[in-house]
Amino acid sequence: MHRGGKIHTPPTVEVADHAALAMAYTPGVAKVCSAIAEEPHLVSEYTWAGNTVAVVSDGTAVLGLGDIGPGAAMPVMEGKALLFNRFAGINAVPICLDCTAVDDVVRTVAALAPSFGGINLEDISAPRCFEIEDRLREMLDIPVFHDDQHGTAIVTLAALRGAARATGKGLGDLRVVVAGAGASGVAVTRLLLDAGVGDIAVADSKGLLYAGRDGMGKVKTALAEVTNKAGLSGSTESALNGADVFIGLSGATIAESAIESMADGAITFCLSNPDPEIHPEIARRHAAVVATGRSDFPNQINNSLAFPGVFRAALDVRARTVTENMKLAAADAIAGLVGDDLSADYIIPSQFDARVAPAVAAAVAEAARADGVARR
Amino acid sequence: MHRGGKIHTPPTVEVADHAALAMAYTPGVAKVCSAIAEEPHLVSEYTWAGNTVAVVSDGTAVLGLGDIGPGAAMPVMEGKALLFNRFAGINAVPICLDCTAVDDVVRTVAALAPSFGGINLEDISAPRCFEIEDRLREMLDIPVFHDDQHGTAIVTLAALRGAARATGKGLGDLRVVVAGAGASGVAVTRLLLDAGVGDIAVADSKGLLYAGRDGMGKVKTALAEVTNKAGLSGSTESALNGADVFIGLSGATIAESAIESMADGAITFCLSNPDPEIHPEIARRHAAVVATGRSDFPNQINNSLAFPGVFRAALDVRARTVTENMKLAAADAIAGLVGDDLSADYIIPSQFDARVAPAVAAAVAEAARADGVARR
Repeated sequence: MHRGGKIHTPPTVEVADHAALAMAYTPGVAKVCSAIAEEPHLVSEYTWAGNTVAVVSDGTAVLGLGDIGPGAAMPVMEGKALLFNRFAGINAVPICLDCTAVDDVVRTVAALAPSFGGINLEDISAPRCFEIEDRLREMLDIPVFHDDQHGTAIVTLAALRGAARATGKGLGDLRVVVAGAGASGVAVTRLLLDAGVGDIAVADSKGLLYAGRDGMGKVKTALAEVTNKAGLSGSTESALNGADVFIGLSGATIAESAIESMADGAITFCLSNPDPEIHPEIARRHAAVVATGRSDFPNQINNSLAFPGVFRAALDVRARTVTENMKLAAADAIAGLVGDDLSADYIIPSQFDARVAPAVAAAVAEAARADGVARR
Repeated sequence: MHRGGKIHTPPTVEVADHAALAMAYTPGVAKVCSAIAEEPHLVSEYTWAGNTVAVVSDGTAVLGLGDIGPGAAMPVMEGKALLFNRFAGINAVPICLDCTAVDDVVRTVAALAPSFGGINLEDISAPRCFEIEDRLREMLDIPVFHDDQHGTAIVTLAALRGAARATGKGLGDLRVVVAGAGASGVAVTRLLLDAGVGDIAVADSKGLLYAGRDGMGKVKTALAEVTNKAGLSGSTESALNGADVFIGLSGATIAESAIESMADGAITFCLSNPDPEIHPEIARRHAAVVATGRSDFPNQINNSLAFPGVFRAALDVRARTVTENMKLAAADAIAGLVGDDLSADYIIPSQFDARVAPAVAAAVAEAARADGVARR
């Protein structure tokens, strides 16, 4: 399946003779160039840039494999590019960078920007990924979206809406424990807070984050300020005592007893791949709702529910950026498709549900317009 | 024809269900990543990188339009990408850079290299293009090929072989005048000298280059050392007196009287586009062979005869670089296809001659092996 690559770049127009060639290339193309030189925004209309995303990685945090370098990261970025096309008809180009210093990554991606309608950052290690994305968002007037952060956050929020509804709980009343303070842990926590989740405690490999804890960088320090209302310290497992929701994004292992200690109607999202934090069948003994990142168990929480529709909308309206409201709208759109079929084993639609990308795109486009970041 | 873009990135594999997705993306893709992490050269086998070229420009010297910037250059790079696919089945990605400093262009292209099997530089202004290409060739172990230089040089040499044969002249006896000392003028002159052309005088906008002339940069100074054996000074037109060959690559205008002053059996290649240096019908009054860059006159000299086959071969044998012998072999292969059909109005095959790319690829691959730069 991977031999020779999973995508290709055929022409969309036929070039069978000199006349067609003279239109597609010189001398005919000069007219199109001149038009864009006069009105730069026309590049999104008269080239593929308006429907094309760069899938950019530096190979520092690839899947569960870690820092394997740019060449070894290519199969993942190419797979991601395939999904962009498969689920949203977007052209996507896998670009793996032979540099890792934050300045170099930022400078390189910024230099590429004129060729694309959006930038999907992927598998870049934390905390570098935060600064890289922040700086690029500031520099560029096209969407820059680190999918490990925001794609994960959107689908997790969508699933949490379904799970809360299935268990009769309100988001504002939930006490959530997030294991993992990397790219996805940080972004999930931020989006859940923005969506109105009551309280979230976040743990990294050294235990819970709390205001004043030693050894936290800038990002974790800021997160500790707005999370963990009770000021808990200690392990993820200790914090699960009486908690409503567990969200695993760390690759750590959680004991069955910790799940057992959660509140009635507990919700557990064990999202580490390929090995969930606790086997979903064991978690299900105690939890009312169990979701994983895997397709062979119920309730698969997968980013491909979010990023195709988000970028479809961003490109369609030529959004300058992806706002918080656009992410919230994407999560609501995904959650909304579950409808009356909701059950403990169906809190989120399948990634092959053809309604998802169009529904997400419609909601995100509307939010982009409402936020004033749409340019058409 | 240009609306929405002239190429796209569909999948080459079907992803219809969870099982296929689990192979194309996570978790299945991890195996492929791990294999490449262990044996880096496998990236060219298990991703599209082995059959994919970046078409890179900074938008500083686009067609006859000049420095129109990266966005306005996109339609040309996309057209070029289309030709790569149309003529050689190569995937190509148009990349226009938002930077022009030599250091920045070099650093950016080098950072992208792991994602591609080759780099086609395009429409980068002289003399910056020489340093950019030289440095990238030194840094990277994949082919870096500035097509405005080498593609033009290859097809010009191919056409000159045909024209010399049609007029019964030997390359070593030819006195050639090249108008233009930019990217193409310099590269054409170098390749013609390597092919054994007897004497070449090169002119820039200030007149002929000769050893010791003021106001020449590094590249022109070096060129003056090995050209213009007679040490002529003055204009292009004055040098044409008694010359065998005129090659126009400058956009300048040449008077009919200058063509008239050339030797018997004169050969004129008026390659400026869309307006040749002199109208081909006027040149034909005095010259035995006239060629242009246009498809509406006989003897079109067009780069698309060369670059598809050159890159086809370079990718097929995983060449580390493109050597001088590979370029000479490409020119010979193109010239060889004319065969017995040779006439004053047929010195070079059509770009739609389906034999061209395979013939060029075969000859270039053999030269790459002979030069020891092939890796398979």
